[in-house]
Amino acid sequence: MSHNLTGIAASPGYAIAPIVTLKPARPAPLREHVADPRAEQARFAAAIEQSRTELEQIRQLTEQRLGAEKAEIFEGHLMLLEDPELIDATNDKIAEEAVNAEYALREVAGTFIAMLESMDNELLRERAVDIRDIASRVTSHLLGEPHQDLSTLAETCIIVAEDLTPSDTAQLNLEAVQGFVTVVGSRTSHSAIMARSLDVPAIVGIGESLLGLPTGTLVVMDALEGRVIVNPTDEELAEYGTRKQRYDERKTTLTRLKEQPTASLDGARVELAANIGRVEDVAKALVNGAEGIGLFRTEFLYMGRDSLPSEEEQMNSYRVVLEKMEGKPVVIRTLDIGGDKELPYLNLPKESNPFLGLRALRFCLKREDLFRTQLRALLRASRFGNLKIMFPMIAVLDELLEAKRVLAEERAKLEAEGVELGAHIEVGMMIEVPSAAVAADLFAKEVDFFSIGTNDLIQYTMAADRMNESVAYLYQPCHPTILRLVNMVIRAAEREGKWVGMCGEMAGDPSAVPLLLGLGLHEFSMSAGSVLPTRELIAGLSKHEWSRLAEQALTMRSQEDVLQFVQHQLKGAN
Amino acid sequence: MSHNLTGIAASPGYAIAPIVTLKPARPAPLREHVADPRAEQARFAAAIEQSRTELEQIRQLTEQRLGAEKAEIFEGHLMLLEDPELIDATNDKIAEEAVNAEYALREVAGTFIAMLESMDNELLRERAVDIRDIASRVTSHLLGEPHQDLSTLAETCIIVAEDLTPSDTAQLNLEAVQGFVTVVGSRTSHSAIMARSLDVPAIVGIGESLLGLPTGTLVVMDALEGRVIVNPTDEELAEYGTRKQRYDERKTTLTRLKEQPTASLDGARVELAANIGRVEDVAKALVNGAEGIGLFRTEFLYMGRDSLPSEEEQMNSYRVVLEKMEGKPVVIRTLDIGGDKELPYLNLPKESNPFLGLRALRFCLKREDLFRTQLRALLRASRFGNLKIMFPMIAVLDELLEAKRVLAEERAKLEAEGVELGAHIEVGMMIEVPSAAVAADLFAKEVDFFSIGTNDLIQYTMAADRMNESVAYLYQPCHPTILRLVNMVIRAAEREGKWVGMCGEMAGDPSAVPLLLGLGLHEFSMSAGSVLPTRELIAGLSKHEWSRLAEQALTMRSQEDVLQFVQHQLKGAN
Repeated sequence: MSHNLTGIAASPGYAIAPIVTLKPARPAPLREHVADPRAEQARFAAAIEQSRTELEQIRQLTEQRLGAEKAEIFEGHLMLLEDPELIDATNDKIAEEAVNAEYALREVAGTFIAMLESMDNELLRERAVDIRDIASRVTSHLLGEPHQDLSTLAETCIIVAEDLTPSDTAQLNLEAVQGFVTVVGSRTSHSAIMARSLDVPAIVGIGESLLGLPTGTLVVMDALEGRVIVNPTDEELAEYGTRKQRYDERKTTLTRLKEQPTASLDGARVELAANIGRVEDVAKALVNGAEGIGLFRTEFLYMGRDSLPSEEEQMNSYRVVLEKMEGKPVVIRTLDIGGDKELPYLNLPKESNPFLGLRALRFCLKREDLFRTQLRALLRASRFGNLKIMFPMIAVLDELLEAKRVLAEERAKLEAEGVELGAHIEVGMMIEVPSAAVAADLFAKEVDFFSIGTNDLIQYTMAADRMNESVAYLYQPCHPTILRLVNMVIRAAEREGKWVGMCGEMAGDPSAVPLLLGLGLHEFSMSAGSVLPTRELIAGLSKHEWSRLAEQALTMRSQEDVLQFVQHQLKGAN
Repeated sequence: MSHNLTGIAASPGYAIAPIVTLKPARPAPLREHVADPRAEQARFAAAIEQSRTELEQIRQLTEQRLGAEKAEIFEGHLMLLEDPELIDATNDKIAEEAVNAEYALREVAGTFIAMLESMDNELLRERAVDIRDIASRVTSHLLGEPHQDLSTLAETCIIVAEDLTPSDTAQLNLEAVQGFVTVVGSRTSHSAIMARSLDVPAIVGIGESLLGLPTGTLVVMDALEGRVIVNPTDEELAEYGTRKQRYDERKTTLTRLKEQPTASLDGARVELAANIGRVEDVAKALVNGAEGIGLFRTEFLYMGRDSLPSEEEQMNSYRVVLEKMEGKPVVIRTLDIGGDKELPYLNLPKESNPFLGLRALRFCLKREDLFRTQLRALLRASRFGNLKIMFPMIAVLDELLEAKRVLAEERAKLEAEGVELGAHIEVGMMIEVPSAAVAADLFAKEVDFFSIGTNDLIQYTMAADRMNESVAYLYQPCHPTILRLVNMVIRAAEREGKWVGMCGEMAGDPSAVPLLLGLGLHEFSMSAGSVLPTRELIAGLSKHEWSRLAEQALTMRSQEDVLQFVQHQLKGAN
């Protein structure tokens, strides 16, 4: 009979293989008196040197396999080898107490680890893992016991361990190792993050019972659900064999799609972009094959601090994103503060209905000082990439014209100052207030593009706060009303030769995508993880056909009718 | 040189005439010893009897001139003549202290008046005025000094007085008395209310300086602004003479319009109805020539109390309104609680954005118990008039269908119980959520009528809380977006042969009315005071012409452009 163990799914995928249980941690080194502390310090220095050489190799291996960013963790390890609080303190202890290096290191590292682990901060707790890793490596060399080398594992296997250090994880021989399962850990621990980068299925935090399994035990890892099936039955083997095959095939398809442009079955091109909220998110967008950034929310620059960010500071952030995107389009939205996003240091008055209040551009037009600072930062960053500036929360034309006037003024000032600007900076606006959708024809004459912000557009069109559970049933992206507004916006833009994107969650919703393609949406911007599945979905759709079907959806009576219709059509197509 | 005095405009109009200053209040009667208290009581009884006869005449006169409701005040006076606390207490004082009746009455009434006047309650303070009035009348008869008779004033004049008692006001000889001005009083005092009913210009609360003017002084009363011009110059006389003439002509026109149906210059008929919030408001609607009630807000029944109103209680309120309207249409809206209207006894959770929350029908569909009670009350009242039931805050079709299902169930139950119902009860919905406007074609198949609630529709379409001053600039009824939505709703309804009303403030806005007429709105519901001016406005407009002009307004860029256009066209027409 099989039995199941459950843990935390840390990196998705399936694996079926016998386990290899890693040696449990060696017993803590004992205190021994040394006659010659100087000689002991020399022995310690030699072990550090060996560790350094080893880590350099691991660092290089990781850089080749996973890129410079993932290798940075080992820069950290190498720096720990020079950390006076760790190394000097150990040398001092050897000298003062005339004790063996293994014991002195254990004591010094142990104090740090205990301190860091007691912190209520995941990052600091992870730092404890690094110190444990480096102390273990140096101790191996002191003892002349080579660190278990996971890069030499030859047989197909699943690694089972108390925990995997980042260096263990980096060295996994991926030819042999199908996945790993650990007793401790969380989704955000170093090793879990590296497992996702390495694309190895991983389940962590499964508990002590795991270590009772003898090496060689056959297990099935379902790292989508976080389940380990020990001694699977024939049925389970067959079932999971099929699942694994399907999953792997799909992964191959998506990986292939990563380098391809987005096109429908009948050859219509659209752009799939990513929404980002921080500079660091660009990496994830690129890894997931995004063709651009469809929405860069700039609020992060203003939040979690106690004063406004300077022009220079903002310019640098925008520049990094533009440079990393290497000429791909980057739509940066001006400050969207207010609503549910507060900035305590601005002391804004409390509002009875903040979603219907002084937010985003409305606020910026009243606080032109900070609006001008942001616009200058954007303009100055423009020459480093393909920048498009987008204004949020516009309801009436006067607001757009006013924002454009302020932008033109700052542009003229910078030009007068001789600042180099990008060649062509597109200027667009969000369509998220119903009024803007209904009057899109008026706005289309004044912008280069629209981006439909469905999260807010739906909320206002239905008059239902999307954060309020009592009325959540009215948040209906595929309701005919919403589709009609989207259609009005696209038709109005087309008549003026302008492009239309969408940066709400609807753009990555598999039920909405066929309809949006059919209505003629040009750019879909979504969370990075949805880009490849959406590219795959679109590759199987005929734009021509969905144009006809979307037309039908516009006249339906409810979201339910629309969703059933879409599902029916998608099934029919397969 | 003329000079000005300013007070509170209590009843509108202009008057130009010399003043007649009413005798100041007679000095308080002195205490005198009487030898025969029994005889003194008889003298008191005779004076009461004379007062009763006099009051009966005044009551009849008032009923003839102003109707039964206004005459009720004298029923109150007549009852005071039998009030044991006033009359018996005075007789007791005469007997116990052997004092004259004038003094005894002054003492007893004085105690009451002082007590009532000290209350922080306008109604009770008005009650003090009644007691003072009746005591003064009885004292006149005791002294054999006839009460100053305002019905016999022959020469054209303006009455100036410390205050006017309700009985003074009721007796004014309107052939002679052009208006009145008092030292004390407020807009809500009895005499101010009666002045408005009598349609006599009145200014109250002007202060002591008024009594310094000798009888015969020429004054101009501007009772629109609350200004009295003493000894006007020739220019002022000419200026106010013209104003008075224009005002009076306009009043004549409006009075004539009161009995007429509403029709445009080219003969198109529309219905002008009133919005009401309480049963008592029906009178004002009828006085102002409303052809129906376009919105009866039922919230008042639920507010200012600590439990839900019973079915019986509600039914009676609806019945009174239906009966008073005598077959004219009455649109009653089901409970619109939530948003800015709270009911403490329902303990609803606090919401972050109450205008986007669980309000109106959304709430009723979750609390079917109280919804069913209201629907039963409405159905049971239906046979007493021309009832139309209206559901508020509908965003999607399912909500309407659900509300109709509950209504049909209650209807079936009542029919099974043998309850008599109205012959044809129309069922409609508010259009106030943008989604409902955009999908009006779907809804039009399922209702008998729409009523566009512009206050909310504008707020949601612009995503701007109309109570929030920071974004008040976005509350733009004549913005092309709003006009487009109104147009969509009317076109959709027309295709299904249904009628469309409007019950937001926009319906009575003189800049919007020509456009709404042009777009084909069928019913305009507004505050009662706007009905006649709107009827006059429409009588001068060609629907055919405004249909063409409204079409042009739909394509304009801003509310400002629309308003200029409307003003220009209206001027051109005159």
